[in-house]
Amino acid sequence: MTPVGGTVRGLLRLPVGGPVDLAAVEPRSTPGLPGPEVTGVDAKAWARDQVRLVGAGLARQQEMLFASARAGGSDRRVLLVLQAMDCGGKDGTIKRVAGAMNPLGLHIRSFGPPTAEEARQHFLWRIRRELPQPGHVGIFNRSHYEDVLVPRVESLVPEEVWRARYAEIGDFERELTDDGVTLVKVFLHISYGEQAERLLERLTDPGKHWKYDPSDVDARARWADYQAAYAEALGRCGTDEAPWFVVPADRKWYRDWAVAHLLRETFDALDLGYPPAGFDVRRERERLLGTEERSR
Amino acid sequence: MTPVGGTVRGLLRLPVGGPVDLAAVEPRSTPGLPGPEVTGVDAKAWARDQVRLVGAGLARQQEMLFASARAGGSDRRVLLVLQAMDCGGKDGTIKRVAGAMNPLGLHIRSFGPPTAEEARQHFLWRIRRELPQPGHVGIFNRSHYEDVLVPRVESLVPEEVWRARYAEIGDFERELTDDGVTLVKVFLHISYGEQAERLLERLTDPGKHWKYDPSDVDARARWADYQAAYAEALGRCGTDEAPWFVVPADRKWYRDWAVAHLLRETFDALDLGYPPAGFDVRRERERLLGTEERSR
Repeated sequence: MTPVGGTVRGLLRLPVGGPVDLAAVEPRSTPGLPGPEVTGVDAKAWARDQVRLVGAGLARQQEMLFASARAGGSDRRVLLVLQAMDCGGKDGTIKRVAGAMNPLGLHIRSFGPPTAEEARQHFLWRIRRELPQPGHVGIFNRSHYEDVLVPRVESLVPEEVWRARYAEIGDFERELTDDGVTLVKVFLHISYGEQAERLLERLTDPGKHWKYDPSDVDARARWADYQAAYAEALGRCGTDEAPWFVVPADRKWYRDWAVAHLLRETFDALDLGYPPAGFDVRRERERLLGTEERSR
Repeated sequence: MTPVGGTVRGLLRLPVGGPVDLAAVEPRSTPGLPGPEVTGVDAKAWARDQVRLVGAGLARQQEMLFASARAGGSDRRVLLVLQAMDCGGKDGTIKRVAGAMNPLGLHIRSFGPPTAEEARQHFLWRIRRELPQPGHVGIFNRSHYEDVLVPRVESLVPEEVWRARYAEIGDFERELTDDGVTLVKVFLHISYGEQAERLLERLTDPGKHWKYDPSDVDARARWADYQAAYAEALGRCGTDEAPWFVVPADRKWYRDWAVAHLLRETFDALDLGYPPAGFDVRRERERLLGTEERSR
């Protein structure tokens, strides 16, 4: 299961504290993917199978996480933060990777433009309300990182306001880590050309019109500004406990494979197991058998 | 896909307004399941395949529901309410049936014994906070119905308090229906003997200890009281718009098949489609192509 040449985590992890050069990551590349001697001639089909296999393992680990919280009093939880340009594949990743897990233990939340109520509050207010409970896997489809991207590029607030948010995010995420949250922060990195193709598909297929928003083209016109905003945010907000990962995302099958592996390696590091019984098994068995003879 | 002899909804639906006789429903029965001329010799394998097939259809309809809310301004949503005795199979049903759908459009919430904060509020307070947003499918693993079951059997509040809740639930659900919520209320009906077997399994398999709670045996000792409480609640709180369904649940494969079908028929009745584009497709295509030549 482990890709050739080390872990996917290691390969995709951005340096902490340093500036980030997103242009140096080729969106069509497939870091960590084994060669044809492992995948056979059809790497795509192989990767799709692996997502299902890894997904089944994730489901087992997710159950242990859930059990540890419910019966073992653990406060452990996992939070996957997904960020990307429009059409970057956040929805598709959730469908494929989270789709393999038990929906009962998932808490998925999409963050759109702030509502009037949300805009009146601190930018972390709506985020705090949606944190996963102990034992759960949370997935944020966009997140608090939007607040150092959109307001900056669209000049919605003064620079000192959005710039101060880097430190606020650092404090917030440290607090989460202390509370048992393992953060997995992923930037799905697509190319300018791939975005055009996907937007065109949404305009061409009537069954996909609902996914299209004219503002997507406005944001596309500011591509370079958004890339710069991402580069600074990812560089400033990565820490040893909660690093940022960049997943090349022009190839959907690689993207799903990489995110599934990132999660798998994250779970492996948690070293989970089922909690021991918090009751006397023999005595409970006797109590249970004692109810057998009773009439209904 | 439609079972022989009419819809599953029709077969499992409880009469509205009348008293309910749960003892008349055999927990090992399989109402609506086609005969061997359709299922072949292995009805279980057939039903498992059908759940996957129906699930794929549900995922498509779920996307239309989601799209209608996101791009079409619809307030439509679906809420599946699952109730059962301990070991009745709520978790398993969610895993199998909801597992076939897109997790992005699901909102699943388990309601345990009220927390101190919840207990200070009206019993519907915690329920209202977890209603699915427009376009989403909500699943309640236990629900507001607990408040006419546990407090009654365990004598936690005076009879006039829990009895008044039948009318409050009726008002509440009418309000939900007016707000675009389609309620699907399902009681998973297991037998006294099957519960014993499942509890014993939880006591025998260390990987299942976490699912066992000694209070389950206490509740089991009050089986008849709980059945009576269910019978009255289901009888008093079924309406034409939001009827109760009883799914025989001793056979897990039948249970999953029946709930998947109930959802499928519910979605079919919503007669969903993709919303038309809310923008000028040709103009947007020109705008998009205009960004192609621009430098990044």
